[in-house]
Amino acid sequence: MKFKAVIDQPDLLRDSINAVSTLINEAVFKVTKSGIELRAMDSANVSMVEMRLLASAFRSFDVDKETEIAVNIGDLTSVLKRAKSTDSLTLELKDNQLHIEFSGETKRSFNIPLLDLKQEQKAPSLEFPVMIKIKSEIIEDGINDAEIVSDAIILEADTSAFTMRAEGDNRKTELKIEKGDEALIELKASSKVKSIFPLDYLKKFIKAGKLSPEANLHLGNEYPMKLDFKVLDKLQLSFILAPRIESE
Amino acid sequence: MKFKAVIDQPDLLRDSINAVSTLINEAVFKVTKSGIELRAMDSANVSMVEMRLLASAFRSFDVDKETEIAVNIGDLTSVLKRAKSTDSLTLELKDNQLHIEFSGETKRSFNIPLLDLKQEQKAPSLEFPVMIKIKSEIIEDGINDAEIVSDAIILEADTSAFTMRAEGDNRKTELKIEKGDEALIELKASSKVKSIFPLDYLKKFIKAGKLSPEANLHLGNEYPMKLDFKVLDKLQLSFILAPRIESE
Amino acid sequence: MKFKAVIDQPDLLRDSINAVSTLINEAVFKVTKSGIELRAMDSANVSMVEMRLLASAFRSFDVDKETEIAVNIGDLTSVLKRAKSTDSLTLELKDNQLHIEFSGETKRSFNIPLLDLKQEQKAPSLEFPVMIKIKSEIIEDGINDAEIVSDAIILEADTSAFTMRAEGDNRKTELKIEKGDEALIELKASSKVKSIFPLDYLKKFIKAGKLSPEANLHLGNEYPMKLDFKVLDKLQLSFILAPRIESE
Repeated sequence: MKFKAVIDQPDLLRDSINAVSTLINEAVFKVTKSGIELRAMDSANVSMVEMRLLASAFRSFDVDKETEIAVNIGDLTSVLKRAKSTDSLTLELKDNQLHIEFSGETKRSFNIPLLDLKQEQKAPSLEFPVMIKIKSEIIEDGINDAEIVSDAIILEADTSAFTMRAEGDNRKTELKIEKGDEALIELKASSKVKSIFPLDYLKKFIKAGKLSPEANLHLGNEYPMKLDFKVLDKLQLSFILAPRIESE
Repeated sequence: MKFKAVIDQPDLLRDSINAVSTLINEAVFKVTKSGIELRAMDSANVSMVEMRLLASAFRSFDVDKETEIAVNIGDLTSVLKRAKSTDSLTLELKDNQLHIEFSGETKRSFNIPLLDLKQEQKAPSLEFPVMIKIKSEIIEDGINDAEIVSDAIILEADTSAFTMRAEGDNRKTELKIEKGDEALIELKASSKVKSIFPLDYLKKFIKAGKLSPEANLHLGNEYPMKLDFKVLDKLQLSFILAPRIESE
Repeated sequence: MKFKAVIDQPDLLRDSINAVSTLINEAVFKVTKSGIELRAMDSANVSMVEMRLLASAFRSFDVDKETEIAVNIGDLTSVLKRAKSTDSLTLELKDNQLHIEFSGETKRSFNIPLLDLKQEQKAPSLEFPVMIKIKSEIIEDGINDAEIVSDAIILEADTSAFTMRAEGDNRKTELKIEKGDEALIELKASSKVKSIFPLDYLKKFIKAGKLSPEANLHLGNEYPMKLDFKVLDKLQLSFILAPRIESE
């Protein structure tokens, strides 16, 4: 079993692991010739994260056969936090440890222990009647606005508009964006939908917005949501969240 | 009763409400054709704040008759904090709520409940023998310097100089500025004065310094002080503070 | 006894006193015609600091005879923190107090009490087989990297390389820099050395890195270290630290 990969954009790895780290404690990465993959439920079993760091994001990517690398995510983030954005970063399996090397003005290396865990999470099969391509910061605005009045957010869409709103305690907030607005890049809706989601999860997901200025949001009616961030040819990061089943 | 006003500088509203919010919990705004006015004692009855946001600060300002709008100031600041400085902001009375809309890349709106309160505070009648027009940051320096050694500050002025000083526990600090110094824009004194004030209040007032690079300070001998910040044709914000009656 | 000195770079004084202030509570400065000197053990008697602010760092420096000035270091740092980097700063002995004046847009002055203490610390006599001239930020990187896995750092050097590393709990980190690397300005080693040091002290010392982009590190085998920061003709700041006597 041999794995060695070099990436010149440590931010890509650091920021995606950071977003993931708020949801899970241990990460099981599947490494194949296509890249590095992670799929996991959060510890409360309410959300799922899928991360795909493509081999094409790396300067070099060598793996002899499919393998799984399990580590404590806190170990990994504390190491990645130490990278400078000008460093190039090498990941390598060595002596049953994950060896991470930063190469910049100096050579700096970190070893973290491997865990004995397997990835068993299957991708859920979901179909969404609504797809919204939107500036990531708009979603962030809606989430932070909603937080003023509630701990949940109502996401609604129809063929012409997307609305994020919250209500509580005689207070209300609403962000509405319509087809034709510059920040709403695309809106495809085959029906009118409405679902309610817990804000605490969305606040974690939206951290990934720093990776990509645009996000794809998939919605249904009283149905889970899926939020995707992509960096072309490099990274796909998806978050799936169950709706809150309750009347407004 | 109809009220709708649009302002293109949300910072003006946000920063003045922020300065006021450290003193009071509920705000009763009087809205007339001239603009929006607030006059209130702080909850400890030691200081008074007067705010006048002139109709000319707004892009449009429509009110059919004099009316009072009372809201929780925490509600208001948490909403205004969400504005971007490029947003234009609409205030409107609607369905017995204050409706605030941000218009930028998207339309975002917030509703906060009205309170059933009246403004009853009368303006005190004060005459000051000393008026000092000075850079706001100089006052801020004097306050922060004084805080190192005491919880009170001594303000002194005569025909030629203005002094902010503090003493305590074998430590001393003094900021002195004289006629002719560039940062002392104007000094009018008909007599020599000295008063002592609690620093905690001054630290709250001086937050308004970010609204205006210059301040007008009015002083008397063992007498209240009045600190004014103005943005020409837009905003007047005044703080009045009772002196500490004590020997040094 | 007369002492008055004016310095146009308040940062020089503030940053060096700041670095020192994490180690000691009272400072006894020896003032001579050559400048201002401080030598002290930290309160746990594990490290020693030596500071020399040369008379040539000052615009004017007048002292009639060698004298000692003892102050509470908290008093001094809280005053120096109030200086703007464009202020010129005057230190003066007056009425048995240390009088510090900032001269900028205004004149601001602070008086702090003198303490009745003497400096009795002798310089230790140490000889180091290894001297390393290195960018300060490299040392800072090594210290912060090590902190992820341990509370101690192993410093090693031989004729060709300098290594900072840490181990703990199945985790490892290593920063290695070799002769010829740009960030390693000079490496003189007459033998191979290795010593272990507590990270908490190094984290305090390295604050002085903001004063000087380069540092001189002196090492021996299971022997104290000495870390020097210099600003040519102005400042010398040295930290000496006892090694941890333990097997890895």
